[in-house]
Amino acid sequence: MELLEKLKIKPIEWIEDDSEGPKLRWLDTRLLPWEEVYRETRDYRRVAVAIKSMEIRGAPAIGVAAAYGLALAAVYSNSKSSEELWNKLQEAREVLATTRPTAYNLFWALNRVMNKAREQLERGSDVDDIIRTVVDEAKKIHIEDVKTNIELGRIGAKLIDDGDTILTHCNAGALATAAYGTAEGIMRAAIEEGKRIKVIATETRPLLQGARLTVWELKKEGIEVKLITDNMVGYVMYKGLVDKVIVGADRITADGYVANKIGTYMIAVLAYRHKVPFYVAAPTSTFDMSIEGDNIPIEERDPDEVRTILGKLLITVKDVDVYNPAFDITPPELVTAIITEKGIITPPYREAIARIVKGKR
Amino acid sequence: MELLEKLKIKPIEWIEDDSEGPKLRWLDTRLLPWEEVYRETRDYRRVAVAIKSMEIRGAPAIGVAAAYGLALAAVYSNSKSSEELWNKLQEAREVLATTRPTAYNLFWALNRVMNKAREQLERGSDVDDIIRTVVDEAKKIHIEDVKTNIELGRIGAKLIDDGDTILTHCNAGALATAAYGTAEGIMRAAIEEGKRIKVIATETRPLLQGARLTVWELKKEGIEVKLITDNMVGYVMYKGLVDKVIVGADRITADGYVANKIGTYMIAVLAYRHKVPFYVAAPTSTFDMSIEGDNIPIEERDPDEVRTILGKLLITVKDVDVYNPAFDITPPELVTAIITEKGIITPPYREAIARIVKGKR
Repeated sequence: MELLEKLKIKPIEWIEDDSEGPKLRWLDTRLLPWEEVYRETRDYRRVAVAIKSMEIRGAPAIGVAAAYGLALAAVYSNSKSSEELWNKLQEAREVLATTRPTAYNLFWALNRVMNKAREQLERGSDVDDIIRTVVDEAKKIHIEDVKTNIELGRIGAKLIDDGDTILTHCNAGALATAAYGTAEGIMRAAIEEGKRIKVIATETRPLLQGARLTVWELKKEGIEVKLITDNMVGYVMYKGLVDKVIVGADRITADGYVANKIGTYMIAVLAYRHKVPFYVAAPTSTFDMSIEGDNIPIEERDPDEVRTILGKLLITVKDVDVYNPAFDITPPELVTAIITEKGIITPPYREAIARIVKGKR
Repeated sequence: MELLEKLKIKPIEWIEDDSEGPKLRWLDTRLLPWEEVYRETRDYRRVAVAIKSMEIRGAPAIGVAAAYGLALAAVYSNSKSSEELWNKLQEAREVLATTRPTAYNLFWALNRVMNKAREQLERGSDVDDIIRTVVDEAKKIHIEDVKTNIELGRIGAKLIDDGDTILTHCNAGALATAAYGTAEGIMRAAIEEGKRIKVIATETRPLLQGARLTVWELKKEGIEVKLITDNMVGYVMYKGLVDKVIVGADRITADGYVANKIGTYMIAVLAYRHKVPFYVAAPTSTFDMSIEGDNIPIEERDPDEVRTILGKLLITVKDVDVYNPAFDITPPELVTAIITEKGIITPPYREAIARIVKGKR
């Protein structure tokens, strides 16, 4: 865990050396940038609540948290038999899987841990062995996510030129992953290579992850950032102020459709018009090889997220109807390249994705 | 003034039958939808403050208010001679003209009133005559704006089909004009013709005119409206939920470049991609025949408008740099038609604008 110790921001932490037993600790991103509050629990149901309410958010971070949710379910199941433990893990999986429908890393992480547990079960392992396996697999997913981000950043940094201004949307940074970030990971790596970059961050309504998290995270590290409202993207591109766009992803299909935070599609359309490269940064765990086209389930969230600012300020007529899709889908023809920890994927996507993602863990 | 009496919402009112002399009253749109507060003054400097701080906003409303500002300057100037009055009017003109640089109706209205005053001055009229002329011209501009909107609405309604869903941005409604509205005037006229329409309103950060004003205004009249954040425009168009876009304008050049609320350009680009007609609704007083191309001065406003929600809630790191252009420019190739009170203008714009606007009052 040395790698994890070095990181400045610790969005998720598995704490083992506690007299009352292991627990999960995380930074409640809903309260940033006003307060840095850490939450902790030994109850997987609380982890599900944290994911659903977006205390923990960002597809890779959700995957790591869900894996630790299963780890907590295993550790505190009080099961007398392997079968009982397996049933309780399935219950926990169900609760954790129904938190957020779009982020693919959630299902990927749950499946990976459950498959490991099933192997042990089928091998006739005892309760303690299965628990150990589940916890170890969750920790592996965690450590791998950090390594994956660092590798993805290193690979993506090749695309960045000295002096670039990079526009990003929402937060695909340390606060959306186990650490380092995907889109922001590329920025960090470019800076480590000595390139000077500037960032334009969209505020990202309704939940303002750009204004609250990306600005907070970048300023904390001294990276130059300018904040804009979401409707200024056209203006800054028209003015020639943007050299590249980099965003994260919540799910990518086998043929290159990208689900990401609402507003991403609009930015991609503008980037296409202005011939600004549009890059998606995502680990291979974000690829859902079982679907094609825009058939990605899109989460519709509470209308009050639109009617208010973070529940603190009502900004419209109380009972007005709203749409509140949390994500939209960007078609592959608008995506210049997808940057993964295994290499840069360029069109034609179906073939390139199959080639790179097939070597999937 | 009968026409004015009938209107439900009175954003601006010139009150003459007051024992202490005439005064200007207006609805402070900054406080909507929470409070309906009317302000009043006899001081043109207060009118300038109201325009600059956006208590009164929307290009046509700004024009009317500025004209009444000159009326107040004339009525309360205490001038001993016509020359003294003329000098004081010029002072007032200067103060009123330096409030908001983009909205062309402001300069149009100020010039119109000043030209009338100058005619009187050159004719050797006395102080009272000049005052009467200035006040009358301001009232004319006011009444004409209402008539213009109603006529513009009638003309634009022809473009609307029964069952249409219309997306609009910011507020080009009764609260942006003397009454009735431009974009919203077309919606009202379509409904009066018996057409059923639905509206999608963008919230319009930073000052949220869509969420606060458009929703309030449309709900008050029972018009079906759904609110979205600015970054959902791509999503609703991708889903095929939008039949037409109608927006207002703050300035239109002789060759059809349209300055309007920040975010308009982005919507136009998306409409173009999705083959959704993009209509601009504006009186001929919005056309600046002296310029071409995108050389429209763009107002840059206080960074705290972006860093906060209406000054009530800080949403980011306190001192983060921001861009805050109040407007952007949509090039003519993205505009399907411009709807004026004198007819519908379609490409090629230079010729069509010259033809229609030349018959300008």
